[in-house]
Amino acid sequence: MKKILIVGGVAGGASAAARLRRLSEEDQIIMFEKGPHVSFSNCALPYHLSGVIEEADKLVLMSPEKFKAQYNIEARVSSEVLSIDRKNKEIEVKNYLTGDIYRESYDKLILSPGAKPIVPNIPGIDKVNVFTIRNVVDIDKLNRYVKELEAKDIAVIGGGFIGVEAAENLREAGYNVSLIEAMDQILKPFDYDMVQILHKEMYDKGINLIVGDKVENFEENKVVLNSGKKITAKAVVMAIGVLPEITLAKEAGLEIAQTGAIKVDSNYKTSDNDIYAVGDAIEVYNALTHSMTKLSLAGPALKQARSVANHINGKKGINKGYIGSSAIKVFDFNAASTGLNEGLIKALNMNINYDIVRLITNDKVGIMPDAKPLHFKLIYEVPTGKVLGAQAIGKGDVTKRVDIIATVIKLGGTVEDLKDLELSYAPPFSTAKDVVNYAGYIASNLLEGDFKQVNVDKVRKLVEDKAYIVDVREVREFENGHIKGAKNIPLSQLRDRVNEIPKDVPVYLHCRTGQRSYNAALALQNLGYNNVSNITGSFLGLSYYEYYNDILTGREPIVTKYNFK
Amino acid sequence: MKKILIVGGVAGGASAAARLRRLSEEDQIIMFEKGPHVSFSNCALPYHLSGVIEEADKLVLMSPEKFKAQYNIEARVSSEVLSIDRKNKEIEVKNYLTGDIYRESYDKLILSPGAKPIVPNIPGIDKVNVFTIRNVVDIDKLNRYVKELEAKDIAVIGGGFIGVEAAENLREAGYNVSLIEAMDQILKPFDYDMVQILHKEMYDKGINLIVGDKVENFEENKVVLNSGKKITAKAVVMAIGVLPEITLAKEAGLEIAQTGAIKVDSNYKTSDNDIYAVGDAIEVYNALTHSMTKLSLAGPALKQARSVANHINGKKGINKGYIGSSAIKVFDFNAASTGLNEGLIKALNMNINYDIVRLITNDKVGIMPDAKPLHFKLIYEVPTGKVLGAQAIGKGDVTKRVDIIATVIKLGGTVEDLKDLELSYAPPFSTAKDVVNYAGYIASNLLEGDFKQVNVDKVRKLVEDKAYIVDVREVREFENGHIKGAKNIPLSQLRDRVNEIPKDVPVYLHCRTGQRSYNAALALQNLGYNNVSNITGSFLGLSYYEYYNDILTGREPIVTKYNFK
Repeated sequence: MKKILIVGGVAGGASAAARLRRLSEEDQIIMFEKGPHVSFSNCALPYHLSGVIEEADKLVLMSPEKFKAQYNIEARVSSEVLSIDRKNKEIEVKNYLTGDIYRESYDKLILSPGAKPIVPNIPGIDKVNVFTIRNVVDIDKLNRYVKELEAKDIAVIGGGFIGVEAAENLREAGYNVSLIEAMDQILKPFDYDMVQILHKEMYDKGINLIVGDKVENFEENKVVLNSGKKITAKAVVMAIGVLPEITLAKEAGLEIAQTGAIKVDSNYKTSDNDIYAVGDAIEVYNALTHSMTKLSLAGPALKQARSVANHINGKKGINKGYIGSSAIKVFDFNAASTGLNEGLIKALNMNINYDIVRLITNDKVGIMPDAKPLHFKLIYEVPTGKVLGAQAIGKGDVTKRVDIIATVIKLGGTVEDLKDLELSYAPPFSTAKDVVNYAGYIASNLLEGDFKQVNVDKVRKLVEDKAYIVDVREVREFENGHIKGAKNIPLSQLRDRVNEIPKDVPVYLHCRTGQRSYNAALALQNLGYNNVSNITGSFLGLSYYEYYNDILTGREPIVTKYNFK
Repeated sequence: MKKILIVGGVAGGASAAARLRRLSEEDQIIMFEKGPHVSFSNCALPYHLSGVIEEADKLVLMSPEKFKAQYNIEARVSSEVLSIDRKNKEIEVKNYLTGDIYRESYDKLILSPGAKPIVPNIPGIDKVNVFTIRNVVDIDKLNRYVKELEAKDIAVIGGGFIGVEAAENLREAGYNVSLIEAMDQILKPFDYDMVQILHKEMYDKGINLIVGDKVENFEENKVVLNSGKKITAKAVVMAIGVLPEITLAKEAGLEIAQTGAIKVDSNYKTSDNDIYAVGDAIEVYNALTHSMTKLSLAGPALKQARSVANHINGKKGINKGYIGSSAIKVFDFNAASTGLNEGLIKALNMNINYDIVRLITNDKVGIMPDAKPLHFKLIYEVPTGKVLGAQAIGKGDVTKRVDIIATVIKLGGTVEDLKDLELSYAPPFSTAKDVVNYAGYIASNLLEGDFKQVNVDKVRKLVEDKAYIVDVREVREFENGHIKGAKNIPLSQLRDRVNEIPKDVPVYLHCRTGQRSYNAALALQNLGYNNVSNITGSFLGLSYYEYYNDILTGREPIVTKYNFK
């Protein structure tokens, strides 16, 4: 019989406990949770603000009584673990209900303390009502508070997952929400070119979205930004990020890594042979960047918990590291991301040779009434074609496509494999060739040097430089909005009018989504043009790319009119 | 300059033509189509019957004019290719608009004639109005005919994809639809145990579903079945299957395979060096059964078309064979399948050692208001753990899960890989551990011998044999419907009441979905019980499994009441 103590009763802790029990009926398992609840759905917390999840109680998935009855696991809530006595293999616990402080011995100890929201000491922070979102108590408090407000102005600071979800759900509940992000974009798992779709959606849905501006200080119910802007806010939700909860581990002398998280080995064991750690508090190996990183994701935490329970019971496993996959709903748009993105590659100064595919397809057969454009970006290694990452944004099933890519990455696949995938197809779900197949085709074509491309983020410069841009859409499409200075030669007239296109300058082609212009590009090349590029993302992608930045900066649009259809 | 002729202007033909043009601007490309339309969405045809796709014209994706203008491809409609003169490399064509018969020479010929609906010569077939669904003309004809009917009785014969989709869409349009299938189940890509969910759905939505009964003959507006039943039908849709369209190839002396389809090599070249064939008319290599097979799927046809265009232009590729992935919507349920299933393994007498995982999870976080059960079945090889196939049925995103499995199969992955997949997660889309992760865990546990299972299809026999079945759901769940003779010991009372369970007989456990009973099974094993089995699919799966068969046979239910929640 082993006695196993677990610090933290949410995702990782609760999951480890249940697995431990399945592996041994006789072990004594005790879980300690500082707050009043174990096993709540932390990822679902923001959905309480909009009423999608009506009762805060619903967020709590298991009670201590249920843990005891179903798993014979003791879950002690309102119980903070104050310290670890590694020498004697004991912890010191404070029971907040009785005030008692007591010691509990262990054979094995699992730390699953999570991460805590960062609340920087910004001047004037006492002049606003600051909230954070970490647990059910937090969200219930925030929700009750805002429900009582007469003025409905709320500021969310930080454009990460929690910030964006909080902003969305508060907006859905009818509040005037400002979302303030110091970086030039929200949601770092998405590249700058892709995330503009979400910037636009936030803006369109009435969020006062502010990017690239920093909170300087607070005044009475006001957020003062670096730009001088003052944002009225009866409540301020701090969502700028989280820090691993390492105090306990650090005070116990466990090794803390350079990332500021608890250092663990391949089996999630800390520097103490009898202490494991899992979840947001640890650093993990990123199998794509080949470096240690913090990863605040639920799925990996659950996997780590299972590994630890297995390891304690003598079951072995291999730690393959992590690639990081995530998803978020932003009003009517769904967005998902996996693996590397351009932003991360640049931020880490990774010495990797890569290229991208960016395309837009219908998410299902185009004639089905609810078919919608799906914006897709693939990152792959050059010249190997190894798939490194993907992002997808659209109103339909984007997580499917990203999950397929995540699977390919995990299994070490290449863009050749993408071409070959046989995905289930029927008109209500997809197209006979799926966007991931197309991405594989395009990447292979690029690797074979069949054609060249430029991304939508280069178009403004091209326009400024008066580059030769040909819009191959039909005339009525062109008239309904086009790039200033672009020449309109519909694909259907291209071969008759090819002499209008000069051979001695670079030619940039686009249509609505890039498919027709791809055909046009190959036709021109086969007709002897040797400097032709397809504008990936084309007019639809460009419209999304430029739209919010125009609003943000007040600059002159490079198109006569945007088109988002 | 090459002159390339293509017979058949739908999926494979049109796709080959477009790719050929991209690879060469100068080649002459002519496509011949017997019907009046090229490039229509054959998979979307049934959706015209319900009005989801309102206008039949919308089903036609490209016109000959557009092919000419955009791709410089000549598409000759209403033009039947009558014969191939291989010696002179010419074809003979009949223009149905002018009545002219003429010859056209080729350097390369691509056959993409598709498959034709089987209309067997059943006695009395002239006494009913028979329709088939192959092209836009067919569906338009059927749709116009039924719209004029006063009596709304229609029979669909054949429970394959087209039959089921036709039945569904006609039912949605308000008709009294009988679906008659000679085999004991519809939709062979789904195993008998899984497809019962769809049988129930068809029945619940008012389809007069008849399985295991054969059409004997027809009387005036009546279908007479082998059982003696007579089904009134003002229109009869024949959807019992398709046969490869091989007449042209056969008459030209091209090799026809034992499957009855055109024989092609790895590059989809027929026995004639200058003639290729693609799509429903050919046989392909199934990479899982290691045998040649017919495969009437759009995705593979498009891939073959691309390969052929590449091969004609000197681009090489590897033929990795096919695994077969498909999807279908059946009223409120979505269903998808990939790779091998038990039915196919048995039908082919495959010498393969396999096991299954069958489980039910929520398709998204359970507290989200639109979370629904997802029924999942995984087939994998024993002892290697190699993933062989999967089926998923539910009201949510089932194609995602099956496509992930299809990807794993294509890349040669195992159940260990499933455990390790990092899928994108947010509460509106999925759960932190997805059903494919769970399936990997369970399969690994089974391979490690951690527990035993029986599938829901064995439960009736267990009940008849008075096996010892323990229902570990809570009392109120048990009272709301349970297996007759099962003992109710809720998981929450299991450890206190374990002495009630005998140690000398096999013990079968279930709960609602199998998760609690899995925990109970491991607890019992760890308490010294050595013959414990978890009933996979549990009460929810059993309810679906038994429901329609009870109705069909009028037999005594083995449960006091079904529960589908």
